[in-house]
Amino acid sequence: MELISGKEISAAVKSEIAEEVEQMVSAGHKRPHLAVIIVGHDGASETYVASKVKSCAQVGFKSSEIRYEDDITQEELLSTINKLNNDDDVDGFIVQLPLPKHIDEDTVIQAIDPNKDVDGFHPISVGKMVQGLPTFLPATPAGIVELLKRYKIETSGKHCVVVGRSNIVGTPMSVLMSRKEEWANCTVTICHSRTKNIEEITRQADILIVALGVPHFIKGDMVKEGAVVIDVGIHRVKSDKTKSGWKLIGDVDFDEVSKKSSFITPVPGGVGPMTIASLLQNTLISVRRKMK
Amino acid sequence: MELISGKEISAAVKSEIAEEVEQMVSAGHKRPHLAVIIVGHDGASETYVASKVKSCAQVGFKSSEIRYEDDITQEELLSTINKLNNDDDVDGFIVQLPLPKHIDEDTVIQAIDPNKDVDGFHPISVGKMVQGLPTFLPATPAGIVELLKRYKIETSGKHCVVVGRSNIVGTPMSVLMSRKEEWANCTVTICHSRTKNIEEITRQADILIVALGVPHFIKGDMVKEGAVVIDVGIHRVKSDKTKSGWKLIGDVDFDEVSKKSSFITPVPGGVGPMTIASLLQNTLISVRRKMK
Repeated sequence: MELISGKEISAAVKSEIAEEVEQMVSAGHKRPHLAVIIVGHDGASETYVASKVKSCAQVGFKSSEIRYEDDITQEELLSTINKLNNDDDVDGFIVQLPLPKHIDEDTVIQAIDPNKDVDGFHPISVGKMVQGLPTFLPATPAGIVELLKRYKIETSGKHCVVVGRSNIVGTPMSVLMSRKEEWANCTVTICHSRTKNIEEITRQADILIVALGVPHFIKGDMVKEGAVVIDVGIHRVKSDKTKSGWKLIGDVDFDEVSKKSSFITPVPGGVGPMTIASLLQNTLISVRRKMK
Repeated sequence: MELISGKEISAAVKSEIAEEVEQMVSAGHKRPHLAVIIVGHDGASETYVASKVKSCAQVGFKSSEIRYEDDITQEELLSTINKLNNDDDVDGFIVQLPLPKHIDEDTVIQAIDPNKDVDGFHPISVGKMVQGLPTFLPATPAGIVELLKRYKIETSGKHCVVVGRSNIVGTPMSVLMSRKEEWANCTVTICHSRTKNIEEITRQADILIVALGVPHFIKGDMVKEGAVVIDVGIHRVKSDKTKSGWKLIGDVDFDEVSKKSSFITPVPGGVGPMTIASLLQNTLISVRRKMK
């Protein structure tokens, strides 16, 4: 069993980005600029945004954090998005989700200029992904593809089973892995809450990608010997073995499944760090497009 | 074994549309208007366009056929699209594919106003479909969903296997059948040319949708007893049993497979007629939206 270290790969990706940025700046170009809008004070959102801002600094990007209290109106938010759309210095920006209930997330996401949609959540980005056209890929699926590539996991003709059908992970992941690309070409099955006898499906997986949001859902007997297992879940649970009294676990029962898998991502340090690496890569793609 | 008659269902759909159109017109509204652009004289395209124009007449739609020789420039075509985008009388329009090689199909499709994209081929339409937002569904997959609905085929929790990953049928079909909707909620597997041991996958299908483009690819031993089989393929082959010397066959070997299936679409008269019915439905959706 080999661990797939998202921590190491994301560090490698960031270091490649940092190098490219320094070359750009040396050649007289401006620094790439990623802006993040955050509304309210959701704990998880605060953590993610802080991490994104820190990562920008690590790779030499300029970053802006635009903060609003959760009583901001939808109109004010849309007006800020419009400003960022028209700000030539901003190469890409994201609106950290979730938003307060009085704001319609779909309207907000669709207001983002697709050329700056580095989260890849705009319908036009999703549609281009499905059609195999150049676009910003959603960050978590793109990060998983990067992991599979860098660990040289053979995908062509393999059976990839995706557990979970969310719009931001499961569904785009299933589409990407079926595409006619060297890094994909899988037979793909997508499972979800309505799937019957799910263990019969997961046991067929050469590559099992789990994004259901249920702690330790995948047990050892649900996995084929030698499978590649990618765990997108992250849950904080009580533990008497850590100083803090808490630990992080995934959707996969790591102790059981790692005994059978050929490759497996740990939680933490697996898929998580790749999401931000992909966001930075998307921002760089936006910069390169403008330079052309 | 019961035949799924696309011929009958499309006639029923058209008759419902015709009734709604007459009510609209009686209430003082204009007739729905579908425009079709055709470039060159491809035989299949001519047949499809003629059939679309005829169907418009059947349901009381106004139709326009805009014809160009295959030496039209991309700029001229884009200029026509721009005119149709801005013509308030036109509720929806399509550009019949394929286009001559000197014209970029993606550029042309992306020039269509998504509010008039009744083929559902614009990336923003595809992205909204994936995200479960209201949009124009691509005609063939939408027609298949309509067939499953009208024959009351149970889909929830069933294993749907889609053979073929094209942008216009296989891929959108696989996404639609996995959505959290009463008419979907399937576990979905998508297979294609790179799939190994494809018969092991197709034999698991409760619902088998075949859009690979290979005549009689699916044989009796590739199908589970009692499966629902939908055949999207259509091929003209020589026959000594018809007057013309030709007959139409599908991707499914009907004689073999119909002995095992619970429901099956014939070729012709199965999926084919539904594509145009869906196009008319999309045009009506566009009209209803504007009336709101």
